[in-house]
Amino acid sequence: MPVAQRNKQKEKIHEIIFEADTPKGKAFDVILLILIMASVVVVMLESVQHLQAGYSNLFYALEWGFTIIFTIEYLLRLYCVYRPLKYATSFFGVIDLLAILPTYISVFVYGTQYLLVIRGLRLLRIFRIFKLGHFLTEADSIVKALKASRAKITVFLLFILLLVIVIGSVMYLIEGGQNEGFSSIPRAIYWTIVTLTTVGYGDITPVTELGQFLSAFIMLLGYAILAVPTGIVSAEMVAESRRSSQSNTQACRYCGREGHTDDAVFCKYCGEKLN
Amino acid sequence: MPVAQRNKQKEKIHEIIFEADTPKGKAFDVILLILIMASVVVVMLESVQHLQAGYSNLFYALEWGFTIIFTIEYLLRLYCVYRPLKYATSFFGVIDLLAILPTYISVFVYGTQYLLVIRGLRLLRIFRIFKLGHFLTEADSIVKALKASRAKITVFLLFILLLVIVIGSVMYLIEGGQNEGFSSIPRAIYWTIVTLTTVGYGDITPVTELGQFLSAFIMLLGYAILAVPTGIVSAEMVAESRRSSQSNTQACRYCGREGHTDDAVFCKYCGEKLN
Amino acid sequence: MPVAQRNKQKEKIHEIIFEADTPKGKAFDVILLILIMASVVVVMLESVQHLQAGYSNLFYALEWGFTIIFTIEYLLRLYCVYRPLKYATSFFGVIDLLAILPTYISVFVYGTQYLLVIRGLRLLRIFRIFKLGHFLTEADSIVKALKASRAKITVFLLFILLLVIVIGSVMYLIEGGQNEGFSSIPRAIYWTIVTLTTVGYGDITPVTELGQFLSAFIMLLGYAILAVPTGIVSAEMVAESRRSSQSNTQACRYCGREGHTDDAVFCKYCGEKLN
Amino acid sequence: MPVAQRNKQKEKIHEIIFEADTPKGKAFDVILLILIMASVVVVMLESVQHLQAGYSNLFYALEWGFTIIFTIEYLLRLYCVYRPLKYATSFFGVIDLLAILPTYISVFVYGTQYLLVIRGLRLLRIFRIFKLGHFLTEADSIVKALKASRAKITVFLLFILLLVIVIGSVMYLIEGGQNEGFSSIPRAIYWTIVTLTTVGYGDITPVTELGQFLSAFIMLLGYAILAVPTGIVSAEMVAESRRSSQSNTQACRYCGREGHTDDAVFCKYCGEKLN
Repeated sequence: MPVAQRNKQKEKIHEIIFEADTPKGKAFDVILLILIMASVVVVMLESVQHLQAGYSNLFYALEWGFTIIFTIEYLLRLYCVYRPLKYATSFFGVIDLLAILPTYISVFVYGTQYLLVIRGLRLLRIFRIFKLGHFLTEADSIVKALKASRAKITVFLLFILLLVIVIGSVMYLIEGGQNEGFSSIPRAIYWTIVTLTTVGYGDITPVTELGQFLSAFIMLLGYAILAVPTGIVSAEMVAESRRSSQSNTQACRYCGREGHTDDAVFCKYCGEKLN
Repeated sequence: MPVAQRNKQKEKIHEIIFEADTPKGKAFDVILLILIMASVVVVMLESVQHLQAGYSNLFYALEWGFTIIFTIEYLLRLYCVYRPLKYATSFFGVIDLLAILPTYISVFVYGTQYLLVIRGLRLLRIFRIFKLGHFLTEADSIVKALKASRAKITVFLLFILLLVIVIGSVMYLIEGGQNEGFSSIPRAIYWTIVTLTTVGYGDITPVTELGQFLSAFIMLLGYAILAVPTGIVSAEMVAESRRSSQSNTQACRYCGREGHTDDAVFCKYCGEKLN
Repeated sequence: MPVAQRNKQKEKIHEIIFEADTPKGKAFDVILLILIMASVVVVMLESVQHLQAGYSNLFYALEWGFTIIFTIEYLLRLYCVYRPLKYATSFFGVIDLLAILPTYISVFVYGTQYLLVIRGLRLLRIFRIFKLGHFLTEADSIVKALKASRAKITVFLLFILLLVIVIGSVMYLIEGGQNEGFSSIPRAIYWTIVTLTTVGYGDITPVTELGQFLSAFIMLLGYAILAVPTGIVSAEMVAESRRSSQSNTQACRYCGREGHTDDAVFCKYCGEKLN
Repeated sequence: MPVAQRNKQKEKIHEIIFEADTPKGKAFDVILLILIMASVVVVMLESVQHLQAGYSNLFYALEWGFTIIFTIEYLLRLYCVYRPLKYATSFFGVIDLLAILPTYISVFVYGTQYLLVIRGLRLLRIFRIFKLGHFLTEADSIVKALKASRAKITVFLLFILLLVIVIGSVMYLIEGGQNEGFSSIPRAIYWTIVTLTTVGYGDITPVTELGQFLSAFIMLLGYAILAVPTGIVSAEMVAESRRSSQSNTQACRYCGREGHTDDAVFCKYCGEKLN
């Protein structure tokens, strides 16, 4: 096959696989999304014992079927992009690879096939396919607010870590002897985290009076602590929304004053027309 | 009956059933609210076994009594409005129909009578009847804030969905063999949601050390994640309250539009001088 | 006793009991606070069975001792104020009466003595005694923010109430037959509230697959719902703090511009000294 | 050893132990951090019974080894600082002492060695060593926001305390006779705190219908209450972020004070013209 012809073929495949603007490209993407969802559902159902007992062969066949399809797709992607290495090391490139590996590994190590659920992450392509770009902008603004509060949250988490180690050890000293649940410091720390985050399974609970008193104190503490990350993120988001609402920096060319809203047509101070 | 007379009769019924300004209309509405509440209470009590055993005939009679009254009311509403189809497809029209259907269906399918609690939604009329319009304004501002953050919350929920699928599968791999509770991926996902939302029933809990370690990590994650939707909604509500506090209620006498700030001298939409 | 002398005596008692400015008045209040705390602790300890078994006579004596002291104090308060009825119907007057009644009633109805914990509310006097007025200002600003969001919260609670009735009934239909915990609609509603508020005792948990699926959905809903009241209160408090931070309305007498902070000595626009 | 030589020696030790700018100082700090972490991990593992059974001698040796190293380090620190008392009473000085004491006390009182986890607090030095000063600034801003809301939170906690005492007593009266879990008022208060904070272990749950009804009410209350501390902290953090975003870092060249807004032309403290 001459190079020019091969390039044309590559371009055509690229258009179908990577783009969603042409009818063929869109059809390909929609079919892919459906296959991914079906594949994730199959993995989930496979883990349900009474289904596994009855349809084990069907699941086995489906699993390999999906994997072979996704492998071909992965190879085609590698084939048709101009810089295969860049795709292979990109976010979606890595996910696409991780989405087929577990089946091959499961030949050697039983159980890894359940890791196939990672295929679910491929569904993130849904935003690009259906032109839901503005949703990504929103996600971006969440990520921005979280990044802005990263330092605060890191300090906060380190503080929590030291706190649960100290509280866990004290609870181990108090409850350790009389309570199966507090049989070691790591378990006591597990209990402390379960309590501070207000999850409260109840698989481990204090039985001594001193332990219950301290627990009540820890819960009220957790109550106050819970307010901190929420406050951090809220403050960031408020600042973010204030920034974007004040972003109109237009000054009136007549009186020079600023502070106009985006929908303003005339200067509210002198009545001059704005640009 | 001549048309004119019938129309007058229709109007009179309409006034009583649909309006709450006349003494008769108000009396009708108050009686209706009481009947609805009584009817919901009866459905609830009917489900309590030791009451059902003793008063089964009474409950049966009351249930049909209420249903017949509400059916007559529904038919009268259809009769007296000028555009019956519009009422029938409106929010309250659908609710009014759903509030009587379950009794009739229960003749064929046992158990559906408990769906009669949907009658409770008819109580929403309370705002209109007692002129609590400003409460609805408040509800409106909540709904507005939620709508404004809809895109952000959708992205967030999709992210959570993918997250619980991946975490659930990993926990299934870790705990699956040794723990009844993690017997399948769907159950492990159920556990993940119970944990991430800090509900923490404790009907399923990790027993392996690795599982407990990962759980503790998931809880701290849930802690941080919990802050995100709260931050989103808070930021929206703060922005909403800022908007309403910064704009006064003055309308431009030329173009009639509102939303001017206190220091505005000219209308920002048409340039007309404000008072 | 002549009227003048009696009035002087009344005034003296009033000074000691009601005021905390004189040494005697302060001493009286401190002793009272200690007695109240001791009395609440005694009521609590009395309810612990193995203590009650050993010290039942001591508890009985202490309880009557405290009650007699508080009764004398109550009568003295009534005696020395100029308008006894006004005191008797004031917040603290009612609390003072409720703090002694249960002991007398317990002669006729056993168990009411535990209601003596209501004495704890008398501790609220602590703010007045130790001149912690600014704490009350803070409490006031919390109450203000809550009041401002009252309408929003009422609408929200009504919505939650209707929601838990509908969800509870649906869960009763799904789980009712196979699950002891969902034996009636009221119990199912109790479970719904336990779940939506993320308390999650685990005394009642869904066992059917459909029930668990719906539960997971309810939890994610509760997650989103939890953000609403927090957002409401946060927005109110932010607005409150903004109002108070903007409260300086001083205008420069030279250039007339506003927006100065409380600690400003000179106008930041023209350098003129501010008042 | 002559004084001058000794002083030089002291200075050299000081440089290594207290400073992290020189290669030797940094190496010392990094080794120290690793030792502290290793020591905390050893204490945790020691509490795990099946490990303690097999490696009891190893743990004993390691524990004493770490303690001797940290004791030498503590003595060196005391020796090389100019004002030993000031160091000994500083935050890190106290922590450094508490980090070695438990081992010595454990000779007399068994079990105290688990208090060695307090060594973990020494890890806070990590910020200084790796020049993560800006993280401390963030911590500082969290602490500032919490301090600013201290009065509000104190009032709030006192209110919660009185609330749980009253609710706990009422629940004791309702459930007391029929429910093992509510056997005394202190236990009922413990349950109330577990419920109000939405931890919800489920080790104690109401069984009577009235008790479950009241519990549901308490949970909805806790729901609303949860919003208050979050609102307080959020409002403070928003105010904090607004303050810092509105004031630039320009200092007046005359009086040297900061906190000027961007539009300020004159220093608001002394009236001097700003750049």
